[in-house]
Amino acid sequence: MLKKVDLAEVFTRFEDTWSPKIIGDVNEMQVKVAKFDGEFTWHRHEREDEMFLVVSGALRIDLDDGAVELGPGELVIVPRGTEHRPVALPTARVLLFESAATLNTGSADGDPRTAAILERLDRD
Amino acid sequence: MLKKVDLAEVFTRFEDTWSPKIIGDVNEMQVKVAKFDGEFTWHRHEREDEMFLVVSGALRIDLDDGAVELGPGELVIVPRGTEHRPVALPTARVLLFESAATLNTGSADGDPRTAAILERLDRD
Repeated sequence: MLKKVDLAEVFTRFEDTWSPKIIGDVNEMQVKVAKFDGEFTWHRHEREDEMFLVVSGALRIDLDDGAVELGPGELVIVPRGTEHRPVALPTARVLLFESAATLNTGSADGDPRTAAILERLDRD
Repeated sequence: MLKKVDLAEVFTRFEDTWSPKIIGDVNEMQVKVAKFDGEFTWHRHEREDEMFLVVSGALRIDLDDGAVELGPGELVIVPRGTEHRPVALPTARVLLFESAATLNTGSADGDPRTAAILERLDRD
């Protein structure tokens, strides 16, 4: 049987921030959840678009030419090649839809928050 | 500047059911929104996985071996090749992540609700 994911529940299963967890695969893409707090690093993804959907809290995505502010139930897609910096105000719970190949810090080589291997929450 | 999508707002922009609207592209996948009411048709997608996230209302996904019931903030991924029938109870507003190639009625040839060309809500 297929298992559903209750977003409210899944965010109770981890506390660490800036460390996306995989909750499922859709074709070559992954659905991930992450807790953000404060400012992340400026970065871009050369070959991958990235969707952020705010589940709770508030998130600002800083861009070269401005910023997008998101509350619960709001989403934005950051196209490949776009410099961006996620900033949680002060925290946000976020659903991500992105390629399995997408590294959270993208082009920001050496950032200590780089999550190279992601935990999966969709396996028993 | 990037434009955000407010899910609560986007569902006020159309009334038709079983007719997914594209709200954005993420790599080769699309983010779509749809209103469901009542029973859809049994079908499968041979080559594509499909994610359903309930924004409001209630949705049951019938499967050969049971059913998954989803409320707001709950999601399920139906793997390729899996026979399924979405049933809204009695209505649901749903966010879909799926391939641009995914036809809403999948294998159910000739179903009158087949939506071959989808409206885009992400263009001004």
